[in-house]
Amino acid sequence: MKNGFGNAITLTLFGESHGPAIGAVLDGLAPGIKIEEERIRHQLSLRRPQGRISTARQEADPFEIISGVFNGFTTGTPLCITIPNSAQHSKDYSATRAKARPGHADYSAYCKYHGFEDYRGGGHFSGRITAALVAAGAILLSALEQKGIYIGTHMSSCAGVEDRPFEDYKKDIAFLSEQVFPVLSEDSACKMREKIEKAADEGDSVGGILETAVIGLPAGLGEPWFDSVESLLSHGLFSIPGVKGVSFGAGFDFAAMKGSEANDSFCYEKERVMTATNHNGGINGGITNGMPLLFKTAVKPTPSIYKEQKTIDFIKEENTSLQIQGRHDPCIVHRARVVVDSLCALVIADLLTGRFGTDYWGEKA
Amino acid sequence: MKNGFGNAITLTLFGESHGPAIGAVLDGLAPGIKIEEERIRHQLSLRRPQGRISTARQEADPFEIISGVFNGFTTGTPLCITIPNSAQHSKDYSATRAKARPGHADYSAYCKYHGFEDYRGGGHFSGRITAALVAAGAILLSALEQKGIYIGTHMSSCAGVEDRPFEDYKKDIAFLSEQVFPVLSEDSACKMREKIEKAADEGDSVGGILETAVIGLPAGLGEPWFDSVESLLSHGLFSIPGVKGVSFGAGFDFAAMKGSEANDSFCYEKERVMTATNHNGGINGGITNGMPLLFKTAVKPTPSIYKEQKTIDFIKEENTSLQIQGRHDPCIVHRARVVVDSLCALVIADLLTGRFGTDYWGEKA
Amino acid sequence: MKNGFGNAITLTLFGESHGPAIGAVLDGLAPGIKIEEERIRHQLSLRRPQGRISTARQEADPFEIISGVFNGFTTGTPLCITIPNSAQHSKDYSATRAKARPGHADYSAYCKYHGFEDYRGGGHFSGRITAALVAAGAILLSALEQKGIYIGTHMSSCAGVEDRPFEDYKKDIAFLSEQVFPVLSEDSACKMREKIEKAADEGDSVGGILETAVIGLPAGLGEPWFDSVESLLSHGLFSIPGVKGVSFGAGFDFAAMKGSEANDSFCYEKERVMTATNHNGGINGGITNGMPLLFKTAVKPTPSIYKEQKTIDFIKEENTSLQIQGRHDPCIVHRARVVVDSLCALVIADLLTGRFGTDYWGEKA
Amino acid sequence: MKNGFGNAITLTLFGESHGPAIGAVLDGLAPGIKIEEERIRHQLSLRRPQGRISTARQEADPFEIISGVFNGFTTGTPLCITIPNSAQHSKDYSATRAKARPGHADYSAYCKYHGFEDYRGGGHFSGRITAALVAAGAILLSALEQKGIYIGTHMSSCAGVEDRPFEDYKKDIAFLSEQVFPVLSEDSACKMREKIEKAADEGDSVGGILETAVIGLPAGLGEPWFDSVESLLSHGLFSIPGVKGVSFGAGFDFAAMKGSEANDSFCYEKERVMTATNHNGGINGGITNGMPLLFKTAVKPTPSIYKEQKTIDFIKEENTSLQIQGRHDPCIVHRARVVVDSLCALVIADLLTGRFGTDYWGEKA
Repeated sequence: MKNGFGNAITLTLFGESHGPAIGAVLDGLAPGIKIEEERIRHQLSLRRPQGRISTARQEADPFEIISGVFNGFTTGTPLCITIPNSAQHSKDYSATRAKARPGHADYSAYCKYHGFEDYRGGGHFSGRITAALVAAGAILLSALEQKGIYIGTHMSSCAGVEDRPFEDYKKDIAFLSEQVFPVLSEDSACKMREKIEKAADEGDSVGGILETAVIGLPAGLGEPWFDSVESLLSHGLFSIPGVKGVSFGAGFDFAAMKGSEANDSFCYEKERVMTATNHNGGINGGITNGMPLLFKTAVKPTPSIYKEQKTIDFIKEENTSLQIQGRHDPCIVHRARVVVDSLCALVIADLLTGRFGTDYWGEKA
Repeated sequence: MKNGFGNAITLTLFGESHGPAIGAVLDGLAPGIKIEEERIRHQLSLRRPQGRISTARQEADPFEIISGVFNGFTTGTPLCITIPNSAQHSKDYSATRAKARPGHADYSAYCKYHGFEDYRGGGHFSGRITAALVAAGAILLSALEQKGIYIGTHMSSCAGVEDRPFEDYKKDIAFLSEQVFPVLSEDSACKMREKIEKAADEGDSVGGILETAVIGLPAGLGEPWFDSVESLLSHGLFSIPGVKGVSFGAGFDFAAMKGSEANDSFCYEKERVMTATNHNGGINGGITNGMPLLFKTAVKPTPSIYKEQKTIDFIKEENTSLQIQGRHDPCIVHRARVVVDSLCALVIADLLTGRFGTDYWGEKA
Repeated sequence: MKNGFGNAITLTLFGESHGPAIGAVLDGLAPGIKIEEERIRHQLSLRRPQGRISTARQEADPFEIISGVFNGFTTGTPLCITIPNSAQHSKDYSATRAKARPGHADYSAYCKYHGFEDYRGGGHFSGRITAALVAAGAILLSALEQKGIYIGTHMSSCAGVEDRPFEDYKKDIAFLSEQVFPVLSEDSACKMREKIEKAADEGDSVGGILETAVIGLPAGLGEPWFDSVESLLSHGLFSIPGVKGVSFGAGFDFAAMKGSEANDSFCYEKERVMTATNHNGGINGGITNGMPLLFKTAVKPTPSIYKEQKTIDFIKEENTSLQIQGRHDPCIVHRARVVVDSLCALVIADLLTGRFGTDYWGEKA
Repeated sequence: MKNGFGNAITLTLFGESHGPAIGAVLDGLAPGIKIEEERIRHQLSLRRPQGRISTARQEADPFEIISGVFNGFTTGTPLCITIPNSAQHSKDYSATRAKARPGHADYSAYCKYHGFEDYRGGGHFSGRITAALVAAGAILLSALEQKGIYIGTHMSSCAGVEDRPFEDYKKDIAFLSEQVFPVLSEDSACKMREKIEKAADEGDSVGGILETAVIGLPAGLGEPWFDSVESLLSHGLFSIPGVKGVSFGAGFDFAAMKGSEANDSFCYEKERVMTATNHNGGINGGITNGMPLLFKTAVKPTPSIYKEQKTIDFIKEENTSLQIQGRHDPCIVHRARVVVDSLCALVIADLLTGRFGTDYWGEKA
């Protein structure tokens, strides 16, 4: 399965930016999982561009569940959600199609697909495809919450501005779930917004780092070779457009630590196993240890910028330059947040299903 | 396949540190790939501990290919390599088995396997299992070199000391392939060794960052969702014990860059498509663009240290402390290098097979 | 992937009989495969019920390709086809839902899905789902024909009446491709129709056997363990509702043969390798040998019959009886034919892609 | 995974007839499954040739479990079993290697592997590989029996002689588990042996049909598309050398039945759901219904016969003839029985794991 992901639960994404619709198929879902359409709408709204710090184009993202749900619950058969693309004014992409936008997949896709790729608006590489992923993820997030498992992500860094770290996980996650701009410190949020607006004014864009916490996980999930929790999460995360780094716990900071600093010592606290620190991000040997799962995702600056850029025309095979038209986000880090949460929900739900079976989930009729 | 990895070519690892043998099965290999046993031995020697900066225990790693090879070439049927474990003096692990070594999988494995895990010497979580991976990887590295594809890894950082970056890829990769301690700058190598020895003297350990380059790759490998080159590589890399971060190109540094700095502009140079910079590490939209593939792997400090550590006894369910006996590496970063190269070879060979079929490989009889 | 099928090319089916739409996702298709919409329509028309020997309900089967096709060619990204379900008059299924129709999945589905299954009109078990499979298969059949590979199926037996065997494969396959009632002997066709109509008059139904030939295949496709050509084909075929037997070449007749009769001796004819007989149906050791691939598929009588049947009410947990209302086919064997051809095309295309890569297919732009 | 099989539990086979060893890797096994070595030996003895009706070559089949078992229980990590090949006297196969044995894979393997295949004694296509499968299957059969699930197979037909059908499943299965020549009727067994010996005297061989019953299965196992119980079982069964037909329940006899005869009516008997007949072999819509699972496997006559046969030399590219030397079985049907049981155990264990998770199995420490 080249374009699918997961073992016990699998997700397949389809669609192109300017085709009739995009969509997702979730397979392996247990029967009896409640579908909360309001939650799906909410998650989609968090992915949507907002005002100045995002593209002005408003995407309504009306979704349709066309299979796998009956009377408000999953049936246990493949669930397909589609989101129609609004009719695009027939901009002529063919004139500029061969001018490879730097940082985008135009040229590499051309090499892979021999020119048959749908090049309009990024085609299958468009960030728009993540809307289907977010819709599917919303279902899994609800299901996990029924099991006491909560996922939350904040912008730990954006345009060089740092957010404070997680403090009270449960409270912070609840707070973030309502924020369009998911930053824990109000002060940091202001500074980030300023930097983003400044970059926008310059026709430029910024990147950032997302930090995710998962609480409520049982110990003992994951496989040593090769389906470690880190392996599965990174596999999913690195499919998100713009993601170029993933780390767990202390991540790259481990490189300068000593073993005596890095190791998380175990202890019993009120008959529960805890670790004094959590540098390993809740994972030992690829397997959850019951502590909060913590990981970071590096998102590069939006490659679509207004500044003129040097590039090639890969059909004429000549050097040229390019100024990208249209509206685009000076920052996608905050919008990528729900995509990260969605993929994380998929991996966690998949691992739980493999361990406990489909009967773990859902209500019994 | 929980403990296997790959699509067109798959690798399954089996074995425990103190069982009769460890091994690997490579499936999906084309027929007609030449087996260079000397290369396998060389790669295994690079993984082996050396003198002061590694454990003193010498592992001879004699391997046996028990299937899938005939008259010196792959047959196209599953190739199984085993490496017998030398008879271990019967140290009694049962006394200390329930004392969870901080930073190790003892406790998480106990939660997963309900106490049936082979706890002797780390069992299936032991770094020793990577010997089988390295043996399998050596076959793929040879096969890739026949196609003009070369992989090399250096310690870009260790114990806080930085190495110089890649300069002349081909030359640097050739240099590294002969080094037991893979550092490009001689001066950096000396400083790293000093730091490692100092940590060893203190009964402590250090971590580091590996940087890998792959040259000679065609453009057009990888899938947008979900088998991006980044996804597949990170999936493999995060299975290596101690790996806690993976990034591509500028990786986490993208977070503080502007789009105008981060984008790699395309140009034709002598009729070849190149990029002026390579911040994206040779990958756009998850697909190779023909530039060198560049990634970093963060390795945490060896969790086995001599210093006394607080921990739990998870069978008695009480707090206790632990001093790890035996010989162990103050640094495994340099040894992890061949494991990274091996997994990278697997992913690249897998992608090439999916794109060009099994007939791409091997000699025709 | 529970509800998907294939390795290099995968097919996922979704949808319920009375939901908004059914559909299929084809993943792993090469770019540049021409989409012949007329062919899709033709194949769908062969699956559609016709007059007396099928249900009178006319299904128009208008399909929509919502992704993976651009300017009339596959893009190489997942291709999703949907077929909307026409608005069903709101028959109340809830009254009879717990009366398990004998020979149907009502009860076994209830046990699997805990009552959350969409029970209307068979839900995800409905033969209607095969329409999406046929639409997807039509694309693959066209692509195979470009490569000189032809697939054809006739009713070798129906209601106890035998058809003549294949004689001139190429001619017979071309003939069958135009027949709604795919029988090679006109005389047999008449007798089968009579028997079917008689069964219909009695409120009963009949079964039959389909025989399929594939010509133009290269030798050397398939894997010894476990993806033999027989394994892959049977895996697909046994998913078709009503299929209860699959055999290759002489199949069950081998049981009464001697080795000296069963073996197909090889010979060179005009420099091509042939076998004198083809009892093995073109497969030796699970791998194609270049002779026509031959297999049979046993289809049980339509389980929906008008006669009253004893059964249970699995919610009230009591014995009861049932008379199935509505229109249903006295025979589905002829309609199952295109489903068999479609699955066969998927398996063959999958095997060719694994062997020769995606670049084997399609036009180069 | 080309040469592996299974979803939650996977089996990979490796090895060649004349290589150092053959073996199997079972992955996905739960921890805590008891290993009964005596049972493995017993199952291997049932596969071994016996006296006149099999080849005289005695294979001792000593097996070694080299991973995944600790203190007599599965650890939950991949279990590898190997069976060394006894040193073969160095018969020179190279002289006859290009003479394609009719009914064997010599020629099709040559086309697939370009001549790199290990041609000695059938290589990876040898029936000997099934020994590893039987060893792995023995572990699963024991585990299933702990859950009250029993599998048994008899020769329902051999050389034209019929056995009686199953009557008392539990008793018949227990009886068969002790029989080297698994026939329920003593009279039929005698006649079959006579026919086999007569064929042996003529330098010929015979085929047959195996019928398998599985009792104790819960209702609700299997998937509609494409992992129906029939699909999964047939996928496995058609990998066994010599298998050319698989059918469920009435199988090919459905073709001549009416719906009113074919349908199995449901009823409650002592509060359990039963069907009055079991033409559907315990499966409706691809999903178990709680009745005994019944299927048939057609095995062709051993292709190795002493009679002279016409064939080709595919290297010289000329017509020739061949007389197969050495010892070979006039019948392998009875030996194939344990292979069928083993694969069936794998499929059932896989389905149960997918439904109920790994925690379904094994003892808790």
